[in-house]
Amino acid sequence: MLNVGIVGASGYAGGELLRLLLRHPHVQLRCAFSGTYAGKLLGEAFPGLSRYTELRFADMDEGLLTSCDVVFLAQENGKAMHLAPKLLAAGCRVIDISADFRFRDTETYLQWYGQPHACPEWNREAVYGLPELYRAQIEKARLVGNPGCYPTAAILALAPLLKANLVDPSSILVDAKSGASGAGRSKFGLDYHFSELNENVSAYKIAGTHRHTPEIEAVLADVAGLPQLRISFTPHLIPMTRGILATCYAQLRSPQTTKALQELYIEFYKEAPFVVVFTDRLPSTKGTYGSNDCHIGLAVDDRTNRVTVVSAIDNLVKGAAGQAIQNMNLMCHFEETAGLDSGGLWP
Amino acid sequence: MLNVGIVGASGYAGGELLRLLLRHPHVQLRCAFSGTYAGKLLGEAFPGLSRYTELRFADMDEGLLTSCDVVFLAQENGKAMHLAPKLLAAGCRVIDISADFRFRDTETYLQWYGQPHACPEWNREAVYGLPELYRAQIEKARLVGNPGCYPTAAILALAPLLKANLVDPSSILVDAKSGASGAGRSKFGLDYHFSELNENVSAYKIAGTHRHTPEIEAVLADVAGLPQLRISFTPHLIPMTRGILATCYAQLRSPQTTKALQELYIEFYKEAPFVVVFTDRLPSTKGTYGSNDCHIGLAVDDRTNRVTVVSAIDNLVKGAAGQAIQNMNLMCHFEETAGLDSGGLWP
Amino acid sequence: MLNVGIVGASGYAGGELLRLLLRHPHVQLRCAFSGTYAGKLLGEAFPGLSRYTELRFADMDEGLLTSCDVVFLAQENGKAMHLAPKLLAAGCRVIDISADFRFRDTETYLQWYGQPHACPEWNREAVYGLPELYRAQIEKARLVGNPGCYPTAAILALAPLLKANLVDPSSILVDAKSGASGAGRSKFGLDYHFSELNENVSAYKIAGTHRHTPEIEAVLADVAGLPQLRISFTPHLIPMTRGILATCYAQLRSPQTTKALQELYIEFYKEAPFVVVFTDRLPSTKGTYGSNDCHIGLAVDDRTNRVTVVSAIDNLVKGAAGQAIQNMNLMCHFEETAGLDSGGLWP
Amino acid sequence: MLNVGIVGASGYAGGELLRLLLRHPHVQLRCAFSGTYAGKLLGEAFPGLSRYTELRFADMDEGLLTSCDVVFLAQENGKAMHLAPKLLAAGCRVIDISADFRFRDTETYLQWYGQPHACPEWNREAVYGLPELYRAQIEKARLVGNPGCYPTAAILALAPLLKANLVDPSSILVDAKSGASGAGRSKFGLDYHFSELNENVSAYKIAGTHRHTPEIEAVLADVAGLPQLRISFTPHLIPMTRGILATCYAQLRSPQTTKALQELYIEFYKEAPFVVVFTDRLPSTKGTYGSNDCHIGLAVDDRTNRVTVVSAIDNLVKGAAGQAIQNMNLMCHFEETAGLDSGGLWP
Repeated sequence: MLNVGIVGASGYAGGELLRLLLRHPHVQLRCAFSGTYAGKLLGEAFPGLSRYTELRFADMDEGLLTSCDVVFLAQENGKAMHLAPKLLAAGCRVIDISADFRFRDTETYLQWYGQPHACPEWNREAVYGLPELYRAQIEKARLVGNPGCYPTAAILALAPLLKANLVDPSSILVDAKSGASGAGRSKFGLDYHFSELNENVSAYKIAGTHRHTPEIEAVLADVAGLPQLRISFTPHLIPMTRGILATCYAQLRSPQTTKALQELYIEFYKEAPFVVVFTDRLPSTKGTYGSNDCHIGLAVDDRTNRVTVVSAIDNLVKGAAGQAIQNMNLMCHFEETAGLDSGGLWP
Repeated sequence: MLNVGIVGASGYAGGELLRLLLRHPHVQLRCAFSGTYAGKLLGEAFPGLSRYTELRFADMDEGLLTSCDVVFLAQENGKAMHLAPKLLAAGCRVIDISADFRFRDTETYLQWYGQPHACPEWNREAVYGLPELYRAQIEKARLVGNPGCYPTAAILALAPLLKANLVDPSSILVDAKSGASGAGRSKFGLDYHFSELNENVSAYKIAGTHRHTPEIEAVLADVAGLPQLRISFTPHLIPMTRGILATCYAQLRSPQTTKALQELYIEFYKEAPFVVVFTDRLPSTKGTYGSNDCHIGLAVDDRTNRVTVVSAIDNLVKGAAGQAIQNMNLMCHFEETAGLDSGGLWP
Repeated sequence: MLNVGIVGASGYAGGELLRLLLRHPHVQLRCAFSGTYAGKLLGEAFPGLSRYTELRFADMDEGLLTSCDVVFLAQENGKAMHLAPKLLAAGCRVIDISADFRFRDTETYLQWYGQPHACPEWNREAVYGLPELYRAQIEKARLVGNPGCYPTAAILALAPLLKANLVDPSSILVDAKSGASGAGRSKFGLDYHFSELNENVSAYKIAGTHRHTPEIEAVLADVAGLPQLRISFTPHLIPMTRGILATCYAQLRSPQTTKALQELYIEFYKEAPFVVVFTDRLPSTKGTYGSNDCHIGLAVDDRTNRVTVVSAIDNLVKGAAGQAIQNMNLMCHFEETAGLDSGGLWP
Repeated sequence: MLNVGIVGASGYAGGELLRLLLRHPHVQLRCAFSGTYAGKLLGEAFPGLSRYTELRFADMDEGLLTSCDVVFLAQENGKAMHLAPKLLAAGCRVIDISADFRFRDTETYLQWYGQPHACPEWNREAVYGLPELYRAQIEKARLVGNPGCYPTAAILALAPLLKANLVDPSSILVDAKSGASGAGRSKFGLDYHFSELNENVSAYKIAGTHRHTPEIEAVLADVAGLPQLRISFTPHLIPMTRGILATCYAQLRSPQTTKALQELYIEFYKEAPFVVVFTDRLPSTKGTYGSNDCHIGLAVDDRTNRVTVVSAIDNLVKGAAGQAIQNMNLMCHFEETAGLDSGGLWP
């Protein structure tokens, strides 16, 4: 059994790590650190875990942490880059769910996250943890930067088109809709107050100002083999708890049929156990509720020669904790789907 | 007092007509026809009206209807074009909330609604009931085709840019999010079952297949002075009851600042009592809940030279019943805001 | 025109006061005080008011406030009892939406609200602002303690039975369900975080520990002509924004028919413009959405000789701001329904 | 591996059976019958299962069905009593999720379900499938009547009090709140239309008219050792998809402390793996979301000498499919929690 530890275990990504790791066949949960809940039972933060474990949250204990084989970091941005080097030096494998190790280019990190990167040398070694694109690198990685939730949905929706050079990269537009849990548990802004978000939808950080923009751009540029790429990305907050739907648009370089593109996607994802390409209907977020799946659908509009690709994920699973475990499975040479074999709840 | 009648009074648009007209200072509600609820009190279909009226729904009575000064038609598509000619011949003014009189080009109607237009001669005289663009014509109209809900939000968001020739018309993309009430009251498909729509979001009729596409295109082409225009339009169903948020994108012909475009919008809508242009934040649908207002916000992305415009309406008010009453006010030379003077509920 | 001022104007009750008073035919809004939003336009706190007023929130100005004819106090508990005496001394009429003037017995206030009452002499003069029971006293009052939201729903549901001495007072049980807005706007506990409240329902402060318990008991005892009365009251938080449904139970002293009790209720409320007694169906909160109405339904269970009475209100209107305006109307001898003539939105 | 079949597999209980059985360690799903979806992939009815199985729904095939070791019947009431005898005669074990085998007294079935029981002889042998009360009988049963969702929540909340003879049975009152999925998938009444249920709560079938009333009464009478028992039961529909919260009230025969009763419950359920008794907080439905757990909390009100017990379950899991699998585990001598080892999702 692999010993694993979690830092930032009482947030929403932490809670999903706990829920999934407690059932993982090859893993033993050794410690769950949380400043807020230290000393309390896991079930006090996550009532659904009440009967599954007697474990308690604890205050950070670096000694205990470095004795783990794999450590998941699920803290706010700017923390992992200080903690990870110690863990790596002690021989732990590290999967960071924050943004700290997502950018190969630390200039971009500085520009968008407002602070210089604390360990550029480790950052150079980090692998972007999107297994559908970087499986081989992840299998050999010691340090993985787990992708953002929006980038996961957007990149999986667009990568096949860019890889095949079928669309004009400058025409790409991602209009994404997210449930409230993406903002995390401790964010108590009025925007997430039930009374204000229920029966309400809004766009936020429009016109290229959301931090996930450069993350999507960097990975898509890499996929397309371009030095740089600029997209329009608009996040929306909608009145639901879980789920991201990314509606992506691009101008086709030449006419294509919907069927041909569906086949391209099926081929592209044939080795990806969690990606399902729908050919007879469109995805909805509920189809991925609680699971690590990504559902994709698409259609070509002949009138405008544009393609619309829609992808759906559970932002806390494939967009965070589930993907982190998928990365762990690859890093530790377990079956890629180990501990992630549950389908989405319906309804 | 003006005598008004409603056909299709027990649907959601009908209910909002009833709620608003019962308080209208210059109107007397003479009859409310509904096949489903004939004989029942208005309050049985709309509990909120229980103490406000003793009126009952009735089966259609053309004699009674032709005695009204103004008739609102709120039935499914394909009905109004048969009924309206009789009402118009009898001297009634008619405001049709269905799609029957929205297209000057009956070929487009045939193509998208699957049946030839039954009275092309009256259709030629009909005015598209978007007062912010066609106020003068509406004031003289006998027959108004009330705009669709999505077109209202999309056109108000994009008209100023096209009028000023600031964007490439072929680059326009509308990604719209709607609450469930847009589908009407009698649509009992599984998609609108609470259990399936709650905690769920999906796109539908993507890639230029939704019937509101040609409606938006025709009006925007008219605004732009172009013979034709093609947009990408994607509707989404989100887990809320009321409200449409239209996120609209277009490529700028030349660089613009956010501030300059905000001023353009403020100037464009300076005579429009229901349109509010936000300069310091973005609109959300809740801000228009239950009111006839349209809230608009925008920003320019210098990185891509694209502008994003977001508009919010209550789909049942500005997107249907409220706009119909606004049209009646103009046709009857009442104050444009008569009976529509209530702000949106918050929260 | 009556000059009115509001203290605590940026909370949810404050917002509804603003929305309703801005349309009130006999009222001019003179000032709206808010510490949080001082200097900002009303529309910044309540987007739905954006186009209806240029007024700004201000910091408290007692001089300006005492120049008002009527002042609404919508602050947290414990504030009004310090401010009201000054306003009353200056000749203002005061309607307090907090709990400060709801209890004739200041001992009860001390016991449940944890502080001694600051002005017992004014409290003696205060009238409990439930017009359906205390209309005559309210018409002569200078100071009104506006009822709590749960008490409004519960008392209206039970008063006819107690007045007629038909039920055993010791058997009364109130199981109430409330939307999140009842907790106010600035309460940012995790319980009101969208992600935690959506798809969730829970009871809180069960077994006689909620502060509205003694309020309901005191008024019901007064109605029943008893020195004291003990009920079971259980509040629940459900995933919606507005609305309270109170399901009330009592043991009948002797067998009764549903029909006889419905007639008793109709008779009891025949002078009450806002109370509707349903005889053919049960009330739901949506039927009162945004309105000052209270909908009541009931049925007798012969098997247990118990009666179940269900009442529905909008907690922010009949449960707070609307009822406060109804009280103002009575105090100022306006029509009781002035400014409150809008039916509930459906859907 | 056990061969299992499902009849009525495309409804919500059927969907949860599929989701859970596809992961069950000792089970092989042999057939899933559905009239509506015959010929379609399971993933077409339940998108969350898309990547987990290639199985298709089929039209009923009694030959195939009788070859199964265990059959789950998840059809509407009145079907199972015709089909079960054939399956039992062929040696299958049968777990019926409808009401057909829940009543030992077929008179009660006739009275509340409006038809005579078709196989009273098999009904005599059926066991009520609530393992926390009838584990020993279930282990030997060939035919189990799976409890209703409301009865599961209510009986688990009240059984310890009645068993210990601590409360007056005639004082029992159950006020239950359910999400919409309890009504099933094909029920397309207006009440379940998203637009009408969202932002709405209502009581229905009040005053002893809901069919779950006699089911709760019969089992509680059995627990209390009484020939008969009458309760008040009020179901409510609230705007969420999954979950039942049952708030139960009873008059204590003698004073009790909250702590003493908590200990009684903990002792009562010490062998019940799915029941968690909370001593430091109250349960909420979200804590059981997607799991087979039942969470219980309680408190005594000294003022009224009443106890309030609150229980929470997922109506589709512990209230239907999960409990059916728990029954199968017992009938087949698997571990009671096999295939049911997943904690509830949070948030």
